[in-house]
Amino acid sequence: MEKILLIICDGLSDRPIKQLGYKTPLEAAFKPNLDKLAYRGMIGLMNTVDIGVRPGSDVAHLSIFGYDINKYYSGRGPFEASGYGVKVKSGDIAFRGNFATVDNKMKIIDRRAGRIEETKPLILAINKIKINDIQILVQQGVGHRVAIVFRGKNLDCKISDTDPHLEGKTLLNSVAASGNSDAERTAMLVNEFTQKIYKILNNHPLNLGRIKRNLPPANIILLRGAGKLLKIPSFYQKYHLRSACIAGAGLYKGIANIVGMKIINVAGATGKPDTDIVAKIKAALKSFSKYDFVFLHIKGTDVLAEDGDYIGKKKFIEKIDRALKLIVPRDDILIVVTADHTTSSRLKIHTADPVPVLIAGDEIRSDFIKTFDEKNAYLGGLGRITGNHLMPILIDLLGRAPLKGA
Amino acid sequence: MEKILLIICDGLSDRPIKQLGYKTPLEAAFKPNLDKLAYRGMIGLMNTVDIGVRPGSDVAHLSIFGYDINKYYSGRGPFEASGYGVKVKSGDIAFRGNFATVDNKMKIIDRRAGRIEETKPLILAINKIKINDIQILVQQGVGHRVAIVFRGKNLDCKISDTDPHLEGKTLLNSVAASGNSDAERTAMLVNEFTQKIYKILNNHPLNLGRIKRNLPPANIILLRGAGKLLKIPSFYQKYHLRSACIAGAGLYKGIANIVGMKIINVAGATGKPDTDIVAKIKAALKSFSKYDFVFLHIKGTDVLAEDGDYIGKKKFIEKIDRALKLIVPRDDILIVVTADHTTSSRLKIHTADPVPVLIAGDEIRSDFIKTFDEKNAYLGGLGRITGNHLMPILIDLLGRAPLKGA
Repeated sequence: MEKILLIICDGLSDRPIKQLGYKTPLEAAFKPNLDKLAYRGMIGLMNTVDIGVRPGSDVAHLSIFGYDINKYYSGRGPFEASGYGVKVKSGDIAFRGNFATVDNKMKIIDRRAGRIEETKPLILAINKIKINDIQILVQQGVGHRVAIVFRGKNLDCKISDTDPHLEGKTLLNSVAASGNSDAERTAMLVNEFTQKIYKILNNHPLNLGRIKRNLPPANIILLRGAGKLLKIPSFYQKYHLRSACIAGAGLYKGIANIVGMKIINVAGATGKPDTDIVAKIKAALKSFSKYDFVFLHIKGTDVLAEDGDYIGKKKFIEKIDRALKLIVPRDDILIVVTADHTTSSRLKIHTADPVPVLIAGDEIRSDFIKTFDEKNAYLGGLGRITGNHLMPILIDLLGRAPLKGA
Repeated sequence: MEKILLIICDGLSDRPIKQLGYKTPLEAAFKPNLDKLAYRGMIGLMNTVDIGVRPGSDVAHLSIFGYDINKYYSGRGPFEASGYGVKVKSGDIAFRGNFATVDNKMKIIDRRAGRIEETKPLILAINKIKINDIQILVQQGVGHRVAIVFRGKNLDCKISDTDPHLEGKTLLNSVAASGNSDAERTAMLVNEFTQKIYKILNNHPLNLGRIKRNLPPANIILLRGAGKLLKIPSFYQKYHLRSACIAGAGLYKGIANIVGMKIINVAGATGKPDTDIVAKIKAALKSFSKYDFVFLHIKGTDVLAEDGDYIGKKKFIEKIDRALKLIVPRDDILIVVTADHTTSSRLKIHTADPVPVLIAGDEIRSDFIKTFDEKNAYLGGLGRITGNHLMPILIDLLGRAPLKGA
């Protein structure tokens, strides 16, 4: 057993849903293959960051990969930007952004500029703006989404969003954490940049055309999630494993990119419930000729739960299960199935409830549990761990952990 | 209940072995006495150092005895030297060593000098060498093994081995961690000492005799595992228990010695699978007239697992079980059976898998588990602990724990 397939189903676990007879979607789903893996392996509960901590997907993934988020995480921006294809460098300040619509008093009319799709001409018009010695990169995301990177000296990410997060509110001035002169400078640059792009975008032909067609113009970019890319050791430096990532959604590719995983693009991997999971698993199996560790991310579980669609989530879990038939049974690969966090389909938010973890392979001390779900997970042999424990346990199962002492 | 018998079976736990029907040797063994203890007691799982950490026997034992390894461990040398009978003092730098054979270009011909047995005359020739103000002690071990102690001021153990660990390679120069002047001085002394002993040993009559008989001369000592003996509180200072150690193998006596346990030598305790476990248990029972705490170490389980002999390991566990008949049932002594780490018979290495722990005695809240093995341990009432938890739990079971608060 020399290979690891880590499948993270985003927001897989849930809370009991009255309409499912007080079962979670995972408990309610028909999932013979996950249960077979549970039977042949060991299950447990994991708090990906810590007990009682409600994690975002970014910090949850970093934590599962063994990165101390207090040391390596300062905001989502760099990971998102990396996922959009920016080669983020250590020291860069990055943001997530939305093309949005403001009136001439800077009041937010539409936070997504009518879910605009055609942003390329706008980005060309504002890209490579330089303010003082700071280079500013704008990278197109899906739809209205965009990533912004500030590159230069004396920048800091301890600044507030320009995005008020609510329509009808006024565009905010970015404000720095008090007493931090780099942050003050960065906030000033952000505000100057925002004014500049309004000037450029408000009269841009594409927007004038939109107004003619009664569509809201994309005349501003709202910034949020400022983060600085901190110096971070690569996954290979940490574990001496050649690693790859198969994911549809940008953030996960971004995190993988930043820790030096190879991104394998799979046709049909959409980051949505319509994704082709079979294609992703097939691509993972194929990639093991070159890689020791494949991180396979499945986003649909979280998307459906955040829409409140618990029935859809249950069905999507059944779709995952059918795809897993490809790897059950399989003794040459250590198969790990887990989630980055719980997503409550009722509350439509991430919650701090621990996630179930399943580890199957021929080196595993199997436990007595034959069902993979939230309710059985605490009875499993893995017990209760936190995210930072997972990688050391997996590396040791491969027989590749460093020896402490002699 | 005023006495504790702590039986540590080195590398007792294992991973499932295909040829044993995916059972571990402990699961496959016939062990009615261990199971009786489990029935009368409480079991659990223990990570002796931490979750996901693969421990050497030295750090595992220190951790189980309640010593923080980050504070009290800097290398195996002092513990090994102490086990060979050197009275190691705080501040001493000690090494494990092998008598070995080099050619005149310092290439390693035999890392064990033909497993030489008669090293006493060689040791007499090189013992009590003094370089500058540093006293160097050489202590005979079993066969080709030897311990070396550097005693004096301004020494540091952050230096590399002279042992290249592979035959055909050249003897290494010890090198210091950069920027550490004490370590630089120590590395220089180690290299000078190594040259000196080559000069003395290469023409030693014993070696000339070996060459005549076509045996490889023991003309060098390869050093490894440099460690400094740090100031360490005694077991008595920590727990106010009069303690003794019964062990065959040197390292364990060494650790016990350093924390101030009385070493009880038992005829037939060999540190190998042929050891006389009954004699050791009888000696332990007898010693309780003078001691409150007896640490009884059994090495055979680890030796057999590191040889890949899972059948032998299973049989040896059955031998341990038969010897335990002497103490089942026995209500006046708190009986603890555990391991320092898991040893995988397939991989032939220590692994980070947690070890089962069994605590039996009349003060114990017994659980529902009647079988002492890896698969049942996680179901036990003790739950999941780390090594540093064990001693406080045991001391409290005696009713002798200090009160926190008032």
